[in-house]
Amino acid sequence: MKVSIITIGDEILIGQVIDSNSAKIGQMVQDLGIRINHKWSISDNREEMLYTFDQANQKSDIIFVTGGLGPTEDDITKEILAEFFQTKLVFSDQSFEHIKALFLPRNIKITDRHHRQCMIPENARLLDNQMGTALGLHIESDGKHWFAMPGVPYEMEYIMKHEVIPYLQSFEITKESYHRTIHIMGVSETQIADRIAPIIGKRNNLIQIAYLPSLGNVRLRLTVDENLTEEIKRELEDYIFQIGQVYGTAVIGYDYTSLEYELGTILKSKGMMIGTAESCTGGYVSHLLTSIPGSSAYFKGAIIAYTNEMKMQFCNVALETLMKFTAVSEETVIEMVKGSCDKLKLDIAIAVSGIAGPDGGTAEAPVGTIWIAAGNTSIVKTRKLQLSKDRKRNIEAAAYYSLILAWEWISEHSS
Amino acid sequence: MKVSIITIGDEILIGQVIDSNSAKIGQMVQDLGIRINHKWSISDNREEMLYTFDQANQKSDIIFVTGGLGPTEDDITKEILAEFFQTKLVFSDQSFEHIKALFLPRNIKITDRHHRQCMIPENARLLDNQMGTALGLHIESDGKHWFAMPGVPYEMEYIMKHEVIPYLQSFEITKESYHRTIHIMGVSETQIADRIAPIIGKRNNLIQIAYLPSLGNVRLRLTVDENLTEEIKRELEDYIFQIGQVYGTAVIGYDYTSLEYELGTILKSKGMMIGTAESCTGGYVSHLLTSIPGSSAYFKGAIIAYTNEMKMQFCNVALETLMKFTAVSEETVIEMVKGSCDKLKLDIAIAVSGIAGPDGGTAEAPVGTIWIAAGNTSIVKTRKLQLSKDRKRNIEAAAYYSLILAWEWISEHSS
Repeated sequence: MKVSIITIGDEILIGQVIDSNSAKIGQMVQDLGIRINHKWSISDNREEMLYTFDQANQKSDIIFVTGGLGPTEDDITKEILAEFFQTKLVFSDQSFEHIKALFLPRNIKITDRHHRQCMIPENARLLDNQMGTALGLHIESDGKHWFAMPGVPYEMEYIMKHEVIPYLQSFEITKESYHRTIHIMGVSETQIADRIAPIIGKRNNLIQIAYLPSLGNVRLRLTVDENLTEEIKRELEDYIFQIGQVYGTAVIGYDYTSLEYELGTILKSKGMMIGTAESCTGGYVSHLLTSIPGSSAYFKGAIIAYTNEMKMQFCNVALETLMKFTAVSEETVIEMVKGSCDKLKLDIAIAVSGIAGPDGGTAEAPVGTIWIAAGNTSIVKTRKLQLSKDRKRNIEAAAYYSLILAWEWISEHSS
Repeated sequence: MKVSIITIGDEILIGQVIDSNSAKIGQMVQDLGIRINHKWSISDNREEMLYTFDQANQKSDIIFVTGGLGPTEDDITKEILAEFFQTKLVFSDQSFEHIKALFLPRNIKITDRHHRQCMIPENARLLDNQMGTALGLHIESDGKHWFAMPGVPYEMEYIMKHEVIPYLQSFEITKESYHRTIHIMGVSETQIADRIAPIIGKRNNLIQIAYLPSLGNVRLRLTVDENLTEEIKRELEDYIFQIGQVYGTAVIGYDYTSLEYELGTILKSKGMMIGTAESCTGGYVSHLLTSIPGSSAYFKGAIIAYTNEMKMQFCNVALETLMKFTAVSEETVIEMVKGSCDKLKLDIAIAVSGIAGPDGGTAEAPVGTIWIAAGNTSIVKTRKLQLSKDRKRNIEAAAYYSLILAWEWISEHSS
């Protein structure tokens, strides 16, 4: 079974919006054994849309379309779908009732634009959307299934979750695709490739391998995309197990997981409370930790101390330390860890101080110099990072490396 | 001139990675008057790649390719490019010297994989990459320009910035595309469409309009994509000016900007220091504010108080307030604003407290109930948000709405 995604809207092409919808759809269908084979992003232009619809229809059995279902004049997906399927637009009472139910309690006026939004291709079935005015569409034609959804991410997600996935579950899909991913920290992709060569060297050639390096970790993925059997699945699982054995505590986790999620699980299981004291990361470490549902079970809080004054007042950093070693120093991050553990009554604290850039460097601490630390009031582990001149990347990298440092500290110092 | 992007790698299709590269490339080329017409995401599979390369070559004059230039066996872009252009791979000394220069000072061993990485299509020119081992490629063939870059975002950005953009600047590009965007807060896309209809109703039909709603704001974009003249540009500019007049202080800014950037500019111009006191947003407001270069000029710090204990200790919230009204209340966020202004010596503070979800709601405060506040020790503006059950969306929405509230507070209470 071949599956495509078409995202519609200039905003993606001109870079005004990052397309997160496709990734989300890819993730959401994977449990069904469905993988996306092809993705197009095109502008909301009639010719482009007709051309791409035709291409997708030829190459795919299931087609997901996002964007262009809204009430304004740039929303032309329904019109073009009607044209493509040689059908007409009809007024949908169901769609109108939906808009009324959303608007009347909030005293919002229904205008001509909303009437226009209720015109849907005659061959479409509507898909519920409790997050907005635009209902999704399901069109079945010549054995192919088209699902059109709004481009607003949480509206798309709602429709996928409540309508599309349950529908797809109802048909017999032969699982053709299987993949497992192992997340390994602190080594490069070439190091991993060399080290695991003896394990996977003689593998069945249907098992493909992919390395996905990112900040502080590499995701190694093994995939089978055709001729999937129980035997080959077991073989693949066995490699994942063996690689896991090789890397031990450097294994962050498996499949769709994240360092912040796995660290949270460890903290929770050990009954430890964590917090952060951040300068240049500006709350990003705290944000990562609290992005996980249930994080209040192990996260207490954070001091974001952009000024020296705050480092002294809230993290007990000594004036002498700042004077003698500066704010970007091992001594300062150690005191930040100890001070915040003390003030916030933490079992472990993370501290970060550095020059995120793009300006503000000195001869001793050029842009990208960032000290990170993790520990408690008695034992602190530190690391000096020498990163780039890119502020966004420096903030993200320092945050991830500091989570890794906390992970290592826990492995070494907590029972 | 037609321009395409091809992103290569299963990780994008299966949703393991969100493709931010395409957006970045789209943004980076726009000043040259270049817009992306088409984008494909495909897996690292020979047939798919050859098919898509052919499609892109037929439809485009410039083709950007990202992904698959690394040292591991899943990196096959160079091989397939050589096959597509019917040329052979040759060992590149320049590439090898580049790897040596990166590795020798850091004592990293050069392996066979790196030798393999130095094999490049004979018709390619190398593009410098100071962020990693994989150099970019430029292939000119039949008047078409192919630029292949690694998929790692900051490596791609380095090559675009230092090699591709300067190269493209050197050729005569007729600017065919022009667009302006205005960011308006606090109104819906239909409200805007109705209100501006009299302004843009009789516009030249080459000027297209697009509405891009996101959290708390709508970006309205006017675009000309063909037959661009100075006259039509002036007409477009005039509409943007008139719409700006209509919305006054509800205009966040223009083009590639953001609420956090524009708010920072206002704070700086007024010499005001800001800080945050956050519960359920967990540092995300602080992260948004500090993501802007130079934010230390107006950002002092934040207290991330996930526990009541921290709300009392660091934000002076009274125990009675928490007991009587709970942590998710107007009274609590008002005290958080006042307390943090006092403790951190701020001119304005933002406070957030709520139930981000997915669990933890009560009858009085169901999941998605979030109180936000902005102000100083004497005047505080508050708002109650009733959001969804989606944690990520709630955190982001509460953060953006709280920045809007701070914006409004400044418009109303600061001279």
